[in-house]
Amino acid sequence: MTQQFQDFLSKRTLSMRKNQIREILKVVSQPGMISLAGGIPAPETFPIEDLYRINETVLNRYGAAALQYDLTEGFTPFREALVSYLGAKEIDVSADEILVFNGSQSVLDTLGKVLITPGDTIALETPSYLGAISAFSAYEPSYASIATDDEGILPESLEETLDRQRVKFIYLVTTFQNPTGRTLSAARRQQVAEVVKRHGALVVEDDPYSDLRYRGEAVPPFYTYAPENTVYVSTVSKVFAPGLRLGFCIAPPLIKEWLYTAKQGADLHSNTYAQALATEYICGGYLDKQLPRIIELYRPRQEAMLAALDANMPAGYRWTKPDGGMFIWVEGPDGVDAEALYWKAVEQKVAFVPGKYFFIDPADGLPTMRLNFTRAHEEAIVKAIGNLGQVAREFASE
Amino acid sequence: MTQQFQDFLSKRTLSMRKNQIREILKVVSQPGMISLAGGIPAPETFPIEDLYRINETVLNRYGAAALQYDLTEGFTPFREALVSYLGAKEIDVSADEILVFNGSQSVLDTLGKVLITPGDTIALETPSYLGAISAFSAYEPSYASIATDDEGILPESLEETLDRQRVKFIYLVTTFQNPTGRTLSAARRQQVAEVVKRHGALVVEDDPYSDLRYRGEAVPPFYTYAPENTVYVSTVSKVFAPGLRLGFCIAPPLIKEWLYTAKQGADLHSNTYAQALATEYICGGYLDKQLPRIIELYRPRQEAMLAALDANMPAGYRWTKPDGGMFIWVEGPDGVDAEALYWKAVEQKVAFVPGKYFFIDPADGLPTMRLNFTRAHEEAIVKAIGNLGQVAREFASE
Repeated sequence: MTQQFQDFLSKRTLSMRKNQIREILKVVSQPGMISLAGGIPAPETFPIEDLYRINETVLNRYGAAALQYDLTEGFTPFREALVSYLGAKEIDVSADEILVFNGSQSVLDTLGKVLITPGDTIALETPSYLGAISAFSAYEPSYASIATDDEGILPESLEETLDRQRVKFIYLVTTFQNPTGRTLSAARRQQVAEVVKRHGALVVEDDPYSDLRYRGEAVPPFYTYAPENTVYVSTVSKVFAPGLRLGFCIAPPLIKEWLYTAKQGADLHSNTYAQALATEYICGGYLDKQLPRIIELYRPRQEAMLAALDANMPAGYRWTKPDGGMFIWVEGPDGVDAEALYWKAVEQKVAFVPGKYFFIDPADGLPTMRLNFTRAHEEAIVKAIGNLGQVAREFASE
Repeated sequence: MTQQFQDFLSKRTLSMRKNQIREILKVVSQPGMISLAGGIPAPETFPIEDLYRINETVLNRYGAAALQYDLTEGFTPFREALVSYLGAKEIDVSADEILVFNGSQSVLDTLGKVLITPGDTIALETPSYLGAISAFSAYEPSYASIATDDEGILPESLEETLDRQRVKFIYLVTTFQNPTGRTLSAARRQQVAEVVKRHGALVVEDDPYSDLRYRGEAVPPFYTYAPENTVYVSTVSKVFAPGLRLGFCIAPPLIKEWLYTAKQGADLHSNTYAQALATEYICGGYLDKQLPRIIELYRPRQEAMLAALDANMPAGYRWTKPDGGMFIWVEGPDGVDAEALYWKAVEQKVAFVPGKYFFIDPADGLPTMRLNFTRAHEEAIVKAIGNLGQVAREFASE
């Protein structure tokens, strides 16, 4: 029987993707499970004690203004705080150039709304962040996959795609990518910027992880190589608290103007109180104190995972060794079906995300998996990778 | 010269409406201006003192959970708090049936996304809430206007529209409507529900104002007359704080399922911390204490405005006398152009919103104006209406 109102749904709705990994991840909440599947910060990184004070400061300083309707573009003190935050990343903008959204997910959704006419082509690195694909798919685009190696997308693959067809934008997570942990190298940024400028193309640079650097030297955002051709997207979710849902972007003037109009129609403005909390978190010196703590919490977890992979994974497996972020990407030998391996691993109380879900064509990612190292403690990580290695060895010998 | 990226905009973007009243309202911030133009709560209604305690309780009780990623459908304790809040309105639902959004504006946007294919018809009362038109227009619908009198939409006009064409949904602000202050009477709700059920139609009931009742008896939500054919939309913006951006809805199961999927792609979930604050505001007894204070603040402002209109407006003017809400709707005699009157009023330091902006066809609303009475103090209201009356009299004799 057709459900009531089935024929009331928009054509667009029929192209939305339900979160396909939700079904297989239901087992993650089973008792005793060590989950390397999530992509969420460790709750130990939240500055709960500081928040008692931050709340008081916000109520004292802003009072009713922190609770009232506010500007669509964002709470002015927050955008001013972001100017210095972005300045430290070599992004030189004024508060007027920044738009605040409900998490970076909402920037991606609004970009889709403003830029994608059904049938337009969006270029993606391979594999790509699943949440971005969910956001864009509601607007009925086609996707073109850009070939990618350990340094990020290949400029010649991008150029070939741009020569062949019209592309509305190229979506890249440039630093410590989700799901691979890869970083587009500085040399590659320069080359990609040249291709993009030559074609008058537009890059959407999603940069949620670059502050989570455990070693090595910072790479300037892609935005700094091609500011006129880039929408820069970031968030305070990974360095403050994701539950506050605060993302932001910088965009070329015309696109910024329409993002503003679309946001006004979609939700008027983002949470004023949360923006006031984030303002004080940045300007009150809390971020500078907390970020090193977050890094010192995550670094040993990542090191534990890399060492455990070395010690436990059978021949034929390789994995990324990122300088930061939240993920390690494991690629098994040809013929391994990581989803079949997933179900064996779950029996051994280890969960991860089979990598095929991050590919437009799942067949391209059958032997891959994404491992998160920010949520579990070191001992749990070592135990989990031990079990995963055992499952992978049994799998190889079957 | 065409701006850079002009041809990157989606077809949809070209149908978005920029906020047309923003331009004429720029003068509102001039010194000495008394604004009756806004639609925002008085900052005196915000429970700032209580919030010091509410924040502490939230951090003590929920800790990291209030700062972490959370369910797309909403923070569970908040949805549980809404069950009792809605129960008091005779809406009998479980927490599972409630979806939380970034203000009710974001419910309206997501409904548009899920339900409107370009060219679909949406039925609106005449005049209608401008923000809803902005939200829906991004999805390229057509509009059908339903004739309306002092008791709300006319069931026979609705029936005629539903007979004549396919309508995706009927959007109604049922109680103390924005912009008119009108309430769909109980008898009319029953009649409209019968028409809607007979046609298998869908009503979107937007109910942000019903708690702001200054006299008379509460009318049950339209939802209670036709729960299977209604999406009920509300918010805590008018009884707690609009800056927290917390709206919610109840919808038929299939529509709820797709609203959920669309929201997951659009912003993952709404601000967890704000939902925790609202939970404690409702469950900690703060709402029950604050709402009577809000009503006692607004009631005399409304009475002052009604009395001043009686004393000052020339013959031929009529206005609504709502039992609650935030607005009074004034209709001048035929031939009056309320926007021309607006510019004269601004010279006398009074601002309001010319009513034509709330009509699909602005020609239908030329002599109308929307007056807000919640923001200015009684003395300011009396002075403002005195000046408005004088301008209206001069205008009549020109």
